Amino acid sequence: MADYRDMWKSLEMDVEKHDELCEILPKFYGDIYLSQENRPEGMNYFNFVVSEVHGLRIKELLEHKEKNEKVIGTFCVFVPDEVINATGAVSVGLCGGSEFWEPAGEKVLPRNTCPLVKASVGAKISGTCPYFQSCDLIVGETTCDGKKKAWEILNEYIPVHVMDLPQMKREKDNLHWQDEIKLFIERLENLTGNKVTVENLAKSIKLINKKRKVLKRLYDARKANKLPISGKDALLISQIAFYDNPERFIEKTGELCDELDNRIEKGISVFKEDTPRILVTGTPMAIPNWKLHHIIESSGGAVVCEETCTGSRYFENLVKEDGKTLEEQMKALADRYLNINCACFTPNPGRIEDIIKYYKEYKADGVVYFTLPFCQTYATEFKKVKDALDKEGIPVIMIETGYSLQDAGQLKTRLEAFFEMLETNKQAAVSK
Amino acid sequence: MADYRDMWKSLEMDVEKHDELCEILPKFYGDIYLSQENRPEGMNYFNFVVSEVHGLRIKELLEHKEKNEKVIGTFCVFVPDEVINATGAVSVGLCGGSEFWEPAGEKVLPRNTCPLVKASVGAKISGTCPYFQSCDLIVGETTCDGKKKAWEILNEYIPVHVMDLPQMKREKDNLHWQDEIKLFIERLENLTGNKVTVENLAKSIKLINKKRKVLKRLYDARKANKLPISGKDALLISQIAFYDNPERFIEKTGELCDELDNRIEKGISVFKEDTPRILVTGTPMAIPNWKLHHIIESSGGAVVCEETCTGSRYFENLVKEDGKTLEEQMKALADRYLNINCACFTPNPGRIEDIIKYYKEYKADGVVYFTLPFCQTYATEFKKVKDALDKEGIPVIMIETGYSLQDAGQLKTRLEAFFEMLETNKQAAVSK
Repeated sequence: MADYRDMWKSLEMDVEKHDELCEILPKFYGDIYLSQENRPEGMNYFNFVVSEVHGLRIKELLEHKEKNEKVIGTFCVFVPDEVINATGAVSVGLCGGSEFWEPAGEKVLPRNTCPLVKASVGAKISGTCPYFQSCDLIVGETTCDGKKKAWEILNEYIPVHVMDLPQMKREKDNLHWQDEIKLFIERLENLTGNKVTVENLAKSIKLINKKRKVLKRLYDARKANKLPISGKDALLISQIAFYDNPERFIEKTGELCDELDNRIEKGISVFKEDTPRILVTGTPMAIPNWKLHHIIESSGGAVVCEETCTGSRYFENLVKEDGKTLEEQMKALADRYLNINCACFTPNPGRIEDIIKYYKEYKADGVVYFTLPFCQTYATEFKKVKDALDKEGIPVIMIETGYSLQDAGQLKTRLEAFFEMLETNKQAAVSK
Repeated sequence: MADYRDMWKSLEMDVEKHDELCEILPKFYGDIYLSQENRPEGMNYFNFVVSEVHGLRIKELLEHKEKNEKVIGTFCVFVPDEVINATGAVSVGLCGGSEFWEPAGEKVLPRNTCPLVKASVGAKISGTCPYFQSCDLIVGETTCDGKKKAWEILNEYIPVHVMDLPQMKREKDNLHWQDEIKLFIERLENLTGNKVTVENLAKSIKLINKKRKVLKRLYDARKANKLPISGKDALLISQIAFYDNPERFIEKTGELCDELDNRIEKGISVFKEDTPRILVTGTPMAIPNWKLHHIIESSGGAVVCEETCTGSRYFENLVKEDGKTLEEQMKALADRYLNINCACFTPNPGRIEDIIKYYKEYKADGVVYFTLPFCQTYATEFKKVKDALDKEGIPVIMIETGYSLQDAGQLKTRLEAFFEMLETNKQAAVSK
């Protein structure tokens, strides 16, 4: 890796503290990712992206800034990237996925806060995330109590624009969200000095839809009986989608998908036959949170799909591209985004339908319901989901776990027992 | 107490389980309340209300139901009682304040849920709360993630109407809340068969304002240098305000206030001189949650005001009474209710202003910031409040505690140290 210390210093980072992170990450990534056998060649690009996660991509962002293009940090799949892109700004996902940042977050937030929120705020406060340091504006949303109240504190360190996501999905809530998108456009226009036009918004809608389509193609490859890619690798690609250059990401993921199609044709799998296929559903996994996938895939399971914000919720459903006015385009955006079935909505029956649909489409054998600690919306919604899955005869296990690896052994034991049960189910079904 | 077992059976209650509660409560109340010295005579009414909390008041509710008047259960100071009253229905506050109900709540909710939500849901599920059993409709709101998602589950047991409280306080959010009030009126009109008219709504607005005024009068009495009533007693009255017959409550509280005025004139106090005066701010204390007040007042402090939903947020600010049309009245309701500074709003600077204002008005010496466990909005807002109070030189201590008395000793130790510090401050100020 090139020496980026001068760049980091120019971003007013705590370079010494950041060094600690730089020391941990490569080993961590190596153990979890590079140790996999028979990975697709196309993963080399993503290995490279990770190796340069705080280097080359930051350099690119600073090049944008030199051209007076703004960098906008986001935390949530509800923030419309299309609008950011249309103003000539660059969007980067900022969620913190490492326990490295939690202690800094706990200086200003209650300990009983979800690790994602603590790590995100901590990453800024500790000055150890070059993405945060590169941002001209942060966009928060009112998706959960933890985040909603954390933005007020984060705003003391960096300007935060908050989009007020409705909590229901009635017609009037759709109008409310359209108006929030309009307010967001106004804020970005003021910041960037660029106007959002029907033309540049249409172009951006097409670009982001293209990103969604290539992710959908990647996920479709995971429906194959012989899995051409691990769940871990697919998760990584989803995570990288949040901050990579979109055009390059589309190209590189497309190339990988060609390779996966080829593997499917040849019946090449990265798992041994009859590995239980797992649908993971729940809270997002921000980079470098690979914990659950790693434990699942080293305990005899294979993750075939994520019904999460770092999974299907990020790419499912396209924005209609035929809007002829800004109003029509904003409506198209609101329609697509309010189709995301986040547990922040009440009620949220669409999520249950999605889980059952994906379970069938991805030929899953069981569901792992994942929540980060103190995520009240997803934890509470578990009951409704479990009741529905029980009715369908779909096995499900609830895993609540944070970023620390302390509980890894215990999780492994629980998951191994769950997978054994799934295998027994499968054999019983075959012998019938 | 009369024998109400047949009544409870008719409400499909678990009477045996309920007996356990009936056995605990009188002793609990006796220890905390009746042991107080020099209480105002007027508290006898409230003693009686508590002794008949699951008896006479329920009998009254059932008499209303016999006249085809509906009983509406609410959980939150944002639900407009005026509207309920205008349809000829009776409003009762339902929040669960006892750990007795928590285990039942935990059967369907995550353990990491605030005790208020767990106990409220548990009270219904266990069939041990005659208020729940008497309700024709429950009204929930979207004030926090815990409650928002719990209504979906509660709705499996009893019909729940959810009012979508906005998360900000802009003009458009005010319009949104007006519309939510309109939807609530429609739901109640359908349920009761009675129309809300300008006349009956005006009458109800006046009645509920009167209740607010008498509570304000009670609280004003606590601004006296010599406190004529304990904080514990004042809290109890606020709690009873949520479910008592409003006319009777106004009358009886008015009589008590006459007595308090008389005491103030004569300089009669229920505390020894120089007892540190405490402003409590934070989450609601539902009946019979008297824990914090009891600990404060048996550790050398006196609670002079509650900036909580079972305190000032319930009665401060009146609804304008001059609305000439339903639209004007709904706007007046929205204006008053959106003036409540709950931590669910983002941002919420008004609450900080309120705390500082009450601190001065009630001549407090220190602030106890109280949150129930897992209440993310209030817990997170602590930082902003503390920063502001520090700036003002106002001492504050954070107490996070649930319903169990297990931590009472530890809290007592912390509070005693805090009160000692306040006394030292006071003496230092005097000797200057």
